[in-house]
Amino acid sequence: MDFKTLLMNRRSIRDFQDREVPLTVVQEILQDTCLAPTASNGQPCRFIIIRDRGVMKRLSDESRRNLLADLAGNPDAPMKMYEAALRDDAFNVFYNAPCLIYITGPQEVPSLEVDSALTAAYLMFSAASRGLGTCWIGLGAHIRGHEILRETGVPEGCRIVAPIILGYPTAIPPASERHTPDIVRVI
Amino acid sequence: MDFKTLLMNRRSIRDFQDREVPLTVVQEILQDTCLAPTASNGQPCRFIIIRDRGVMKRLSDESRRNLLADLAGNPDAPMKMYEAALRDDAFNVFYNAPCLIYITGPQEVPSLEVDSALTAAYLMFSAASRGLGTCWIGLGAHIRGHEILRETGVPEGCRIVAPIILGYPTAIPPASERHTPDIVRVI
Repeated sequence: MDFKTLLMNRRSIRDFQDREVPLTVVQEILQDTCLAPTASNGQPCRFIIIRDRGVMKRLSDESRRNLLADLAGNPDAPMKMYEAALRDDAFNVFYNAPCLIYITGPQEVPSLEVDSALTAAYLMFSAASRGLGTCWIGLGAHIRGHEILRETGVPEGCRIVAPIILGYPTAIPPASERHTPDIVRVI
Repeated sequence: MDFKTLLMNRRSIRDFQDREVPLTVVQEILQDTCLAPTASNGQPCRFIIIRDRGVMKRLSDESRRNLLADLAGNPDAPMKMYEAALRDDAFNVFYNAPCLIYITGPQEVPSLEVDSALTAAYLMFSAASRGLGTCWIGLGAHIRGHEILRETGVPEGCRIVAPIILGYPTAIPPASERHTPDIVRVI
């Protein structure tokens, strides 16, 4: 796919066809993400692929529960705008996607957040170039229970930075609003 | 340009032709970055374009000085591997590139690091699709002096997350080594 077309047509997708993403396709996409630049070429990211919808629902419930507990301790946090959704037991933060990829890495790596985000950008472009849709689900990263962390395979000392849902879109939604680049100064 | 070609051929570029990047081209690239996803579509990034090589050299010297001061206080920091280069007054952390873009944003935005990194990925792809080379220069973000921050136009309360150099490459270097994706678990 032409890059300009890809750039103009990639969207955050939250509505998916009831169609599995073949594991080989997920693996190809993850192979592409390894080309992302990382600080000092440290390549700290590790991936967990979740295609079991029961596990995904439990991860969604765990994340909702932890976010609501945080909100109780800090009622004016920006998370407040999601409170009604988080209180809805039927709400799946992963939008019933057929696949979820956790990008994790060692907490001790100072550049972990930016390395993971660069890797996520590659993941999202690679997926879109194959006709797949993605969305970075910030609400889905708040997994803390030892049991569920072990079941999910998050390595000791690692942190989930980017939960990315993946699937075949039902439709390509209109572009969300963007402002022009905020160029503060040209020197 | 075909996305697969772009993906396979983008490199971190540290050696540039002595050729200016037209401001209109920089502006087009920054326009493309506005299509990057950001948390809750917050679009927090602000850009500073620096094409004055004297200013760039002073920013390099300021960053080197601050990094060496940090290293004196923490001699075992990972930054140690760059110590010899940082002590060399002739070393320009921006590799004498003809253009430097600072991606900054409000410190108070919790997602600033990942939003800026996603924006940086768009910047680097957009530049590569136009035949330009880029490199994220982590060493160049350590600007602290009030005077130089004011001169550079970094807005009050904002932090430089991503210094990206931009220019026409002298050559496309071989790909740096990458490991295969570290897939911890498939569920």
